[in-house]
Parts: sequence; C-alpha cells; structure tokens
Amino acid sequence: MIGVYDSGFGGLTVLRRLRERLPHHDFLYLGDSGRAPYGGRDVHTLLDFAEQCVERLFEEGCRLVVVACNTVSCVALRHLQRRYAGPGSERRILGITIPAAEAAVAVSEGHVGVLATTRTVSSGTFVTEIQKLAPRLRVTQQAAPLLAPLIEEGWESTEIARLTAERYLAPLREVDTLVLGCTHYPLMLPVLRQTFHGRLLDPAPFAAERLLDWLERHPGFTGPSQGRLSFLCSGDPASFREHGARFLGAPIDEVVHIAEEAGRLQRRTSMQVVTGQILR
Amino acid sequence: MIGVYDSGFGGLTVLRRLRERLPHHDFLYLGDSGRAPYGGRDVHTLLDFAEQCVERLFEEGCRLVVVACNTVSCVALRHLQRRYAGPGSERRILGITIPAAEAAVAVSEGHVGVLATTRTVSSGTFVTEIQKLAPRLRVTQQAAPLLAPLIEEGWESTEIARLTAERYLAPLREVDTLVLGCTHYPLMLPVLRQTFHGRLLDPAPFAAERLLDWLERHPGFTGPSQGRLSFLCSGDPASFREHGARFLGAPIDEVVHIAEEAGRLQRRTSMQVVTGQILR
Repeated sequence: MIGVYDSGFGGLTVLRRLRERLPHHDFLYLGDSGRAPYGGRDVHTLLDFAEQCVERLFEEGCRLVVVACNTVSCVALRHLQRRYAGPGSERRILGITIPAAEAAVAVSEGHVGVLATTRTVSSGTFVTEIQKLAPRLRVTQQAAPLLAPLIEEGWESTEIARLTAERYLAPLREVDTLVLGCTHYPLMLPVLRQTFHGRLLDPAPFAAERLLDWLERHPGFTGPSQGRLSFLCSGDPASFREHGARFLGAPIDEVVHIAEEAGRLQRRTSMQVVTGQILR
Repeated sequence: MIGVYDSGFGGLTVLRRLRERLPHHDFLYLGDSGRAPYGGRDVHTLLDFAEQCVERLFEEGCRLVVVACNTVSCVALRHLQRRYAGPGSERRILGITIPAAEAAVAVSEGHVGVLATTRTVSSGTFVTEIQKLAPRLRVTQQAAPLLAPLIEEGWESTEIARLTAERYLAPLREVDTLVLGCTHYPLMLPVLRQTFHGRLLDPAPFAAERLLDWLERHPGFTGPSQGRLSFLCSGDPASFREHGARFLGAPIDEVVHIAEEAGRLQRRTSMQVVTGQILR
C-alpha cells in the first residue's frame, strides 16, 4: 500500500495520475482537510502537521509515502526524509517537486514559469531544483493565492476564473513553459489554456512515471495489492467525499475521519478500519 | 488598555471604528495572522487558538478583550466568556455579533441578509441572535469564502471583485438590509454598493457605540490611557505592517511578533516590550 499525503483535496489530482499509471497498486490517501490550507502557516507548524500525517500513514502500514502537495514538498520534504527515511530505514518518502523540475527542464526552450501558492513561491524550491538541473534556464515564479480557493469554490470555469488567471499570468508573458506548481490547478486547465499561449505543464503524470521507475528499482516497498483506494481526512468527511470527487475525477465512497485533539491528529485505533474501494 | 483580538487583519477595520469613538483609550491589537484564516479549522482548534490569544492579551495587562472577528465571536465567544470572564472574574470579553444583530434589527424592514465566512454561516449565530430580538424577521445567510482572500490580495476594487460580489449577492435580492458579517468586507463597500441596492450594514460603528456605553456602565476596566495603539501578530510582522495599514486606514509603525511553538503561541517574555504608537 502506497501512502499519498496532501494538505487537503489537491493531491487527489496527483492520486488520479498515480492510479492511471499504477492501477494494480493499493493507495491510502490522507488529506489534512481540517487544517487546510497550509499556505499561511509558519514553517514549524507545517513541519509538525506533516510529521503527524506521515506518521499516521506509517501506522496504517504504508512503507512508501508520496507527498502529493507542492507546498509540503517544497518546505518539508527534506526534513521528513531525514527524520523518517534516512540510511537504513525501511521507509521512503518521495515528493513531487523534483519530477516537476525534471519535466520542466526536459521541455522548456529557455524560460520556465512557476504558478504556485505564496508559500511554495517563497520557499524558492522550484527555482533551486530547476537550476540544479539546468543552471542557465530562466525561472520566473508567480504566487497565485486566489486560485486554489476559487477552485475549491467550484468556480474554475467562470469569467471570474478567467480574469483571475489573466491577472496572475500577465507577468509571465515571456515564459515558454508554465509549471502548475499547485495540485489544484489542473482543474483550471481549460481556462488557463485560454489565457496562456505557451506550454502548460501539469507535473502529476511525470510524478506517476517517476514513481513507476522508482518501484521497479526498489521492489518490496508496497506489499500485496489489489488496486484498492482508501481515504483518510481530518476535515468533514461528507465534504471530503463531495469535493474530493471533482479532484479525483471519480466518486469517493468511504472516508475515515481522523479527529484532531489539542493540535494533533489522533493516533490510529482498532475502531477505525480503512477498507477502501476499487474504482472501475 | 483594551485588548482587540482577531484571527488576522480584518479586526483592524473594527479597531479603526473603536479608535474613532474612543480616541483617548489605549488599544492592544492581537492578530493571529500566522494561523489565519480560521475558516477551515475544526471547532476544537478554533477554541484552542482563541484561548491562546485571549490569554496572551490578559498577560499583557488587558482586563477587557473585544473579539473583533465574527467567526470567533460566533463560534467561541460563549466558551471564552465562561472560561475567563464568569461571575466574580475581574476580566470581561465582548464580541461583535450581538451589536451587529441589534443594528440589523433596528433598521431592517423585514428581511435581513448576512454575508459572512462559511464557518460563521454554519454556526447559525447571526440568525439566532437576530431572531432572539425580532422573531418574525426573516434572515438569509450567504457564505462568501472568496471575499476575504480577494480583499487580502488587494483586489477589492477590480472587475473580479464586482463579479464575485454579484455571484454571492444574487440569492439575496429580496433582502432589505445586508449585514457585512466579516470584518474584511468594509474594504469592499464601494463594489458592494454597485451590486446591492438595499442597505449595507457595517457593524463596526455600532460595536464602537456599544463599547462606549459598556465602558460608561463598567468603569475601571481599562486603566490610565494615552490614546496609544500597539500591535502583536503571529505571522510575518513586515507583511502585517504592510497589509494591516489598508485595513486600519492608517500606517502601522511597530508590530511585535509572537512565535508559535508546537502549535501554541509563545508566552510573554520580558524581551518583548510592546511600546505602541500614537496615531495622529
């Protein structure tokens, strides 16, 4: 079983691509929707939340966790890897920023744009990772704090979305390849295509490709699988089912709620059995 | 010194009105900007944050705290009053929802609308408080989760703001009086006036009036004053100064940062001296 961790719903757009590429694997998705968005949190809180979520996925039996949130990948991945997946550990944690950087470097003709949350932009991680691979590539970042809430409101196809995209993309006219640096943004691809005339890059399919490679090189991290999909969330499960389906592109049957107590996610109890569903 | 507590910047629009009405009082504003927005938090987390903030204001020497955030007033005020300001206590905590309800009841001709955050709407507190005073008054609530982030982005005068307001206000056509149930919204009054043809009610001036009454009936809760204004925030102080000035309608000179450690605001230390400023 592969753990997929996100601050809320966005990571479901990544899970969708992981499942398409790895249909026979079991996935357990943990959306920390009760504490989303992470954007405005200070770094220590974000690391604390990320630790709690990753620990919960380990408790559930995952040995491999994919951090399917760009903000957490940019800010906390190194920390999580050092803490839980150092040399000798039987666990691994993978992010999605490096596959995104690799994909951007592979296709860009000279100038990459990165559209992301304020926190992701201020981390500078996309710039660092892209320029590690291609030091001469120009990278322009643009924080777009309204896009994710707009998509969560279900307004991604409205005139409001178009005008918002126009405003955020105006400083990116010279960019040839625009990385969607937040997992919400693929839902807005039709509107972004109207507004931006270069190449739009959703990193999720590349992350799925990289995961497939990785699993071939590292057998034994996932255990026996049946193609099952299970969900945990810290927010309201009914709202997770409803909104989550738009992000996953498929209905979500069952979600197990993880309560928060005094700032920490509850530990796993034998009462909470995650049975999962098989998508057809 | 009167403590004014808000989840971030919005309460500064209330502080502005409090200062206009009570220019000789000292105010200490605490904006929990590092953990804002509170909207998506579960109730226990929200209560926990509110306790930490109110405790900090008490530690700073405030005996009277105004909760200048509708979400906290709606969800946590009763809890805070029971915990810190019960019978025999020398402390008092006042909210802004009841003054808003009183103002709405005083002017409405039959149908009040409430525009607010999702959390405020789902608490039902505005409806309860209005109908306690006027059981026959019709009340229609509308959650507007995009408005506060849009205003924080500084886009309150754009076409995007107008279209967003139109969309949220469409179900409120029959309303004669619309309560701005979030302290961010007064910044959008010009656009709201274009979109809504009934009476728009910013509750802040009424809250200031009520506070003045209250202070006359309860002398001794504020101590000697010089008309000073001081600020604490849990987020980035530079960003607080910059954005806060728009909400306060005046420059903010100095902000003391309160760090968050393992999910809790730091206690007061002698290192952090809040000196305050006198606005002219």
